[in-house]
Amino acid sequence: MGNYNVAPLENLVEQFERMPGIGNKTAQRLAYYVLNLSKTEARAFSQAIIDAHEKIHYCEVCCNLTDQKLCPVCASEKRDHSLICVVETPRDAAAMEATGEYKGTYHVLHGAISPLNDIGPDDLKVKELIGRLSGEVKEVIMATNPTVEGDATAMYLSRLLKPMGIRVTRLAYGVPVGADLEYADQVTLARALEGRNEL
Amino acid sequence: MGNYNVAPLENLVEQFERMPGIGNKTAQRLAYYVLNLSKTEARAFSQAIIDAHEKIHYCEVCCNLTDQKLCPVCASEKRDHSLICVVETPRDAAAMEATGEYKGTYHVLHGAISPLNDIGPDDLKVKELIGRLSGEVKEVIMATNPTVEGDATAMYLSRLLKPMGIRVTRLAYGVPVGADLEYADQVTLARALEGRNEL
Repeated sequence: MGNYNVAPLENLVEQFERMPGIGNKTAQRLAYYVLNLSKTEARAFSQAIIDAHEKIHYCEVCCNLTDQKLCPVCASEKRDHSLICVVETPRDAAAMEATGEYKGTYHVLHGAISPLNDIGPDDLKVKELIGRLSGEVKEVIMATNPTVEGDATAMYLSRLLKPMGIRVTRLAYGVPVGADLEYADQVTLARALEGRNEL
Repeated sequence: MGNYNVAPLENLVEQFERMPGIGNKTAQRLAYYVLNLSKTEARAFSQAIIDAHEKIHYCEVCCNLTDQKLCPVCASEKRDHSLICVVETPRDAAAMEATGEYKGTYHVLHGAISPLNDIGPDDLKVKELIGRLSGEVKEVIMATNPTVEGDATAMYLSRLLKPMGIRVTRLAYGVPVGADLEYADQVTLARALEGRNEL
């Protein structure tokens, strides 16, 4: 495919093709979808991109995304500000928030330590985290991804925070709810066994 | 998910979610991709949507998409203007063009006759096709989709054009190249048998 010979269309297809998980066929479908929008809809879509880009920045406290000075969690008096949940990305914070179970605050690192990709602690929002550890904070929960990078980041932060007298915890490893034991990988199963609880 | 509490982000996610084949999770991923673009890139993306929408219109002759008066195929003197390939959408024309085998012109109907969806001949670019059938046109190839709607459209047009003394043909039905006979459906196999050729 590809031979459209229509420069603005080719350009739009290219724009979509750069997105994660979008191949050429999908990019074409999306471009034709845009062409079929009404003028108002197309303008709204175009403006949404500019708006999201220009109005959204990092919360001054937790580095999560917000269009205000503080994100709603940091600004809320109902949240437990003595508890910080450290996550890699804003999407992880959104996932935690969706459980409806967590009442503390967040801290978004915007990545994980990864020597292979040349990402060290200075490339993450670690300084900002340290800056928050006033007397009020009692516990920091590591909710980085259960990957090598996430684990390394959690370990690094825990070594940094523990000497400051702060309780550092980690999300429990174990078998996912509703999953089939048969299909759980060995490492997960071993960790689930290790972390078993009294019934 | 969904609890981002950031209006411009939610808006952008909604915009992506309206697109065909894009669910909530993908829409989120795309929205975060946009947030991570540089200012220049985000502006280019936004402008590409406006450009595609405002600069692209139908070719005056074949109703394919173009940003010129005529599409490159209709404008080309190298193409055989006595041959018209009728397709449902611009993407179908692009697919035909990608074969590199077709040297005639196209006509894009922008849909197919579908009584269930209340789409009749007047909703398609049929009048424009009839208007092209001067003495020069010798053959019209029906390349509508091999579906009930596509077949009905091809049948309708062939009944309209044949009395005008124009040769009307249809793309061959058969087994796709490289496919496994075992997995071909019965109707396709029956059609392939029906249309068998001398070796």
